[in-house]
Amino acid sequence: MALKVPLRKVTVVCERLLRPDILKLLKKHGATGWTITAVEGEGSRGIRASDFEGRNSQIDTIVAPETADAIMTDIAENYFADWAIITYAMDVEVLRGEKYLG
Amino acid sequence: MALKVPLRKVTVVCERLLRPDILKLLKKHGATGWTITAVEGEGSRGIRASDFEGRNSQIDTIVAPETADAIMTDIAENYFADWAIITYAMDVEVLRGEKYLG
Amino acid sequence: MALKVPLRKVTVVCERLLRPDILKLLKKHGATGWTITAVEGEGSRGIRASDFEGRNSQIDTIVAPETADAIMTDIAENYFADWAIITYAMDVEVLRGEKYLG
Repeated sequence: MALKVPLRKVTVVCERLLRPDILKLLKKHGATGWTITAVEGEGSRGIRASDFEGRNSQIDTIVAPETADAIMTDIAENYFADWAIITYAMDVEVLRGEKYLG
Repeated sequence: MALKVPLRKVTVVCERLLRPDILKLLKKHGATGWTITAVEGEGSRGIRASDFEGRNSQIDTIVAPETADAIMTDIAENYFADWAIITYAMDVEVLRGEKYLG
Repeated sequence: MALKVPLRKVTVVCERLLRPDILKLLKKHGATGWTITAVEGEGSRGIRASDFEGRNSQIDTIVAPETADAIMTDIAENYFADWAIITYAMDVEVLRGEKYLG
């Protein structure tokens, strides 16, 4: 039987070239899965609309709440000063959630 | 006047070739709309990062809470054993939500 | 130190050609950032699945709750009658959220 578990989805939107760094950071905190979407962006933290689609990357990962906090704090401390990057989290209910308890 | 209705957004991330099956499953449960996004993914349920973008598909649909549960359970029972697929749900507030009461 | 702030993410899914109008509307309400994702869609409000990917646009912006309501109401009043467009909102927790208080 499938198990429903309340977890957190953390979203990171960053320049495309930062992807390897962010995936490494996610793994360090125990995240075991993610999806990456090519997006355009513009924002207060410096992400610019691009002439072509997909210049920026949106990385989503689903983790335990305390892991979500740790990931976001790590990103803020190590990337906010020098990079155009934003991060936010939301509640999600995952089926077979025991797979995501990173 | 626009009506705000609390509903659930169900997200399914799967291999691209599963898209027709999943859309058929959503329709069977009464979902009347969805968006599909090309994504890359890697995860504990076997979804792999691909050499090119968009090998996987993210399918989002907005439905009533009980429909969300039925969709996720159906996916778990019929696809988790053999496919790299994940599914999760979250609360959303939809304007003119009466259109989504599938 | 990073600051966590509860805000709202508003999502708009519309035909690609409506993007400039929607971005202008978001700016009018004080939104200072957004991401745009190319999506396929089909739905009760008339958005059609396309022969190629990315015919529709998903626009996400993070704003204060009252701004989220104002944006959604504006979209409903000015676009629902004539366009295939949907909009919904969800709670998000943003790091360094003071940047998004549009």
